[in-house]
Order: sequence, then C-alpha cells, then structure tokens
Amino acid sequence: MPGPWWEQACAQPSARHAALARARQQRLTKPPGSLGQLEQVAVQLAALQGCERPRLDRVWISVFAADHGIAAEGVSAFPQSVTAAMVRNFAAGGAAISVLAREIGAQLEVVDLGTVMDPGELPGVRRARIAAGTANFLDAPAMSRDQLEQALTSGAASVARARAWNAALFIGGEMGIGNTTSAAALGCALLRAAPTELVGPGTGVDARGLERKRAVVERALRAHAQRRSPLELLAALGGFEIAALTGSCIAAAQAGLPVLVDGFIATAAALYAVHLNPGCRPWLLFAHRSHEPGHRRLLQALEAEPLMDLGLRLGEGSGAAVAVPLLRLACSLHAGMATFEEAGVSDGSRA
Amino acid sequence: MPGPWWEQACAQPSARHAALARARQQRLTKPPGSLGQLEQVAVQLAALQGCERPRLDRVWISVFAADHGIAAEGVSAFPQSVTAAMVRNFAAGGAAISVLAREIGAQLEVVDLGTVMDPGELPGVRRARIAAGTANFLDAPAMSRDQLEQALTSGAASVARARAWNAALFIGGEMGIGNTTSAAALGCALLRAAPTELVGPGTGVDARGLERKRAVVERALRAHAQRRSPLELLAALGGFEIAALTGSCIAAAQAGLPVLVDGFIATAAALYAVHLNPGCRPWLLFAHRSHEPGHRRLLQALEAEPLMDLGLRLGEGSGAAVAVPLLRLACSLHAGMATFEEAGVSDGSRA
Repeated sequence: MPGPWWEQACAQPSARHAALARARQQRLTKPPGSLGQLEQVAVQLAALQGCERPRLDRVWISVFAADHGIAAEGVSAFPQSVTAAMVRNFAAGGAAISVLAREIGAQLEVVDLGTVMDPGELPGVRRARIAAGTANFLDAPAMSRDQLEQALTSGAASVARARAWNAALFIGGEMGIGNTTSAAALGCALLRAAPTELVGPGTGVDARGLERKRAVVERALRAHAQRRSPLELLAALGGFEIAALTGSCIAAAQAGLPVLVDGFIATAAALYAVHLNPGCRPWLLFAHRSHEPGHRRLLQALEAEPLMDLGLRLGEGSGAAVAVPLLRLACSLHAGMATFEEAGVSDGSRA
Repeated sequence: MPGPWWEQACAQPSARHAALARARQQRLTKPPGSLGQLEQVAVQLAALQGCERPRLDRVWISVFAADHGIAAEGVSAFPQSVTAAMVRNFAAGGAAISVLAREIGAQLEVVDLGTVMDPGELPGVRRARIAAGTANFLDAPAMSRDQLEQALTSGAASVARARAWNAALFIGGEMGIGNTTSAAALGCALLRAAPTELVGPGTGVDARGLERKRAVVERALRAHAQRRSPLELLAALGGFEIAALTGSCIAAAQAGLPVLVDGFIATAAALYAVHLNPGCRPWLLFAHRSHEPGHRRLLQALEAEPLMDLGLRLGEGSGAAVAVPLLRLACSLHAGMATFEEAGVSDGSRA
C-alpha cells in the first residue's frame, strides 16, 4: 500500500543546468560574483526549471484564508471578523496582495478554507470550507486528522490549478486572525524552541498582549507535549491555511514547480513541508526576512537566505510578491547580458 | 557676487504631503507599519514629489564613465582598457545596466567624461570628455579646479536633460577602472577614517592587491594631508565620474528631483554632495548596501537606511535600477490599497 500523497517523491533539480548557468554567469560582462544573490537565484532557477536561461513570466498566487479557535484567547490586535472581511477585500481588489498581484501581472486566487463569518460566494474566491475555523488548541487538537488531510489537499489542488495555468512560480499567502500564535506554537513544537524565541507581536499586540500570547503558546505546548510527529503536531497546533501552505509546498516540489515562500506563517508551513518530505527543500526560495522576530529562527532551521529585509510583517503572500521583480531581473540579467567574448571586453585574466 | 551654482539652495520637501501620506498609510487595510520600509519610502516620495500619492513612471539613468590615473598603481583586477570597452558594451546593450534599464523601462544615457582609450562616437553615448583620465593622485591632484567644475557641471547637465524628459527619479551610475580606490580615499579624507575601514576588494583584487590598494590610499592621504575643504579633496582624490555624480545629486536636489543612490562609489559622491550642500540630503534615497565593505561606513555617515542587501558590487547604477520596482510597488500599494472605511474592515481599534 502506498503512503499518503505527501510522502511521494519530489522532482529532482537539474544539476546539469545549474552548472551551465553557473558557467554562463562567469562569462557575463561583470566581475564574477558581483551580482551577489541575483546570480545565485538565477542559477537556482536554472536548476529548477531545467534550462540554462530561466524565466518567470507567469506567477501564480494562492491566498488561503481560515480562522483560528485560539483567537478566543485574545492573542490578536484585530477581531476575528477581520479574516472574512479581508477575504472580501481580496476579492474587491483593495488588499495589499490584490494590488501587488495586479502590478506584477500575477494570477491571484483566494481560497476560503473556513472563516468564522462565512463571506458567501464571491468572485475570485474559491470555497473550500473545512469548518468555521479550527478548534481552540488549548483544549483539543486544532483539527482532526481528516480535516488536516483536507487542508493539505486543498494546497495541492491550488498547485494543480497553477500548473494547468502554466505557472513558472507558485506563491502561497495566508490570512487568519490568530495565525502567528499558531505558527509560533508549530515552530516551537518542531524545533523544541522556547516560546520567547518564536512568539512576537504579530499584527501588533502590545506588551501585555505579547505576554498573554507567550503564556498561551506555553500552555498549548504542555497540552500537546505527548505528540511527536510533524503530522500530529500540524493537526494539533496548525490552521487550515497553514496546512494548505504545507501541502502546496510539497505538491509543487513533486510537480517541479518552484515556490517563493513569504514570511513567518508561510515559513512555518514550509518547515513542516520539509519535515514531512525533505525532497521539497530545493524547490523553496525565500523572499524576505519578516519583521516578526521569530522568522529569523525559522529561516535558520531551513538554512534559508532570503532576498530582502524590508521590515514587512503583513502576510497575504505580500513579501513574496514584492520579491518577484527581483527574481525576474535576476533572470533578465542572466539571459540578456553580453559575455566577455561577445562584447570584446577583457575578463581581467590578463590584468 | 553669488557663490558657485552648487552652493545655491536646494528645494524643500513638502512636510504637508508627507503628513497626508503618513495619515493615508494608517488608514490602509493592513496593520499599521506592516509594510515596513515600503511605507516609509512612499511617505518620503510624497514629500519629495509634493503629492499625496507619488508615482515613479519615468526613471532616468545617467552612467558616467572616466578613467583614473591611480590605476597605474595596480589597484584593480581589470586592465584600464575595460572602461572604454564597457562604454561600448553600454551602448551595444550588453551591460548589466543596459539590461536593467530596458527591463524597468528607464531612459539610459552614457556620458564619457574621459576614458584613456577614446571609444569615439557611439549611439547613446554623450561625449563630454574632460581629459583622457585623471592624473595619478599619488603625485598630484587627480584634477584641476577647472576640470572639477567641468565634471560637476556635467552631472548637472544630465539632471537638466532628465528634467526635460520629465523624469520622476534620477539614478547616477559609474564606470571607471580604479574608482573604488578613489572613492575609498575620498571617504577616508572626509570622514578621517582609516584606509582599513574603507578600502575593499572592489571588482575583486586578491589579498596582495588589497594590501597594495590600502598602501596606495595611505600614501595618497599623506600626500594630500594639507587639503581640507570637500571641494579641494574632491579635486585631489576624485574622478571625473565621481564629481559628476556629486554634481548630479546637488542639481537634482535644487530642481526637486529625487535621486536613488547606487553603491559604494555613488555613495562616496553623495557624501561629498551633502558636505558641499547639506540641503540636498532629503532628496537622496539609498538603494542597497553593497558587498564592498566600506559602503556600510559611508551609509552610516549619511544616516542612510538602504532598501536592499543583495551582495551586489557591480556599479553602473545597477543596484539602484534593481531597487526601482520596489519603489514602484511602494507607490502602487500606497495609492491602490483600500482604506479600512472603503473596505468595511475593522481597523482593530475595537478589538
């Protein structure tokens, strides 16, 4: 009997195309290495796309929205009704990710996995509601095993739509009041880190709110201390949107579609993806280091070097969308610059 | 008798439009501050453009090229002929800045201020040759006072062309084998810093080359130790392209045109601009922190917080060009996002 879909093998990056791209970078009319991370990312994309000169014309963004039972503990600066209100804002084009998707020419879909207030049918919003939010994970697992599978598979379904649309890059975003608390608890449980390392102000709780949030995560870690496997922990402490992001990372890697990971929540989801299926790690690029302090710890655990550090802490996939022009410019420079031979410029080897 | 043009007053940013933009950022559907530096830069551009919702459709790039007498001391990994060869590469469209200008839709002009090998007439290259390179500043000032004025004024002439083209942003780039040595010497002299703080590998000299470069800067600082004023130092240790960049910063600020400053060389030029005319500082935005180690020190002296840290060290204005999409997205988010009232989303004040 085969294991679940998320344990199936991921695609293999092309070492041959990475080598070709690396050699090309050495011949372009610039001091070797002088384009820094833009060179590295061009080489990485060459390996992932299996071609010497990668392109990122078609970018797909799925924003997964869901509510969190843990919000009842007063861990957010915003009321829970904001999750559904923001789903409406995504659909109406007024949210940050809506503006960014338009500006970078990306295809945006919003997936409602279960908000407390049902926003109803909305153009551009896919209904895939699992429940009206997760359970409060202080008392019980946030979701059942069946709900977890539904959420993971929703992420895979988004990847399937992205592939059908011929996407060259997948971005997963999230919206869910309370989800920095869930992500912090997930990170602590998997990395055996202290809540002080991973709990931060999120959307902007004050010092008292931060204390409350830390206490909530501590209690949750104690309540679920007997759980060990990433799958159990994801069900116990996760959110529908976080599990969907985890599923999307794995499904994209299985399909050979590069993923640009956003901030704190998306990185927590990516960490679980890598623990569930280590073969997905090469397919993950990291857009930015969030202002949320725990993000640094999650990035370290993934040995990830993000492209930007702009103090962003908005979520929705917004940081990843902002980084898309940098990736595209990396590809354009890689493909469009003249080589030393073509330009008749000395490469310095006779200097 | 009026002083020289570069001492004339700079334009004043609009505090009123900064306040309007700041207030707007607080009303957009996101946690306040969650767009980090993208919020700050939108507010800054609102002040500089004197409108609540700034735009950066039209971007102008002038790349100033010139050779350096100090190259005779073996301070570069590349032969001096590369300066003129790269001017040809700029014109032919094969250089990094050529690719970037195309991709971001910027207007690119190349200004030949004096390479050792005259590249002749080339399409897209403006001939403004002052001399076939500067003098070796170990023995004598790099340029005369008259040559310095010509270089400063060439920078101002580029700004005048950018304004006539209705540019919303000015980027100055540079090409000149040996110019990290000149920029390091300029920085040390003005900041009274040790060569170890500001001399780095540039295009990529090895450890011995780096030692030689440091020794050259030390000797130059001793040779010109009696000079004090920024103008004298710029003539003594500068390059034509560096002085042109200095002139462009001041002329742009006088005209009310924002400048996006590139890397190590451009920042050294900006530092001199601010010392010659402190009123130009508000008009300078900083694109990135270069891999060249001395850049950090120059940015500190200017109290500048650059947008990116991608390990770039190419020059040509390339780092600034790469940052343009980030500035544009900052403007788009600022102008295009819905407010809490418009979207019917709670701003959290009742949470």
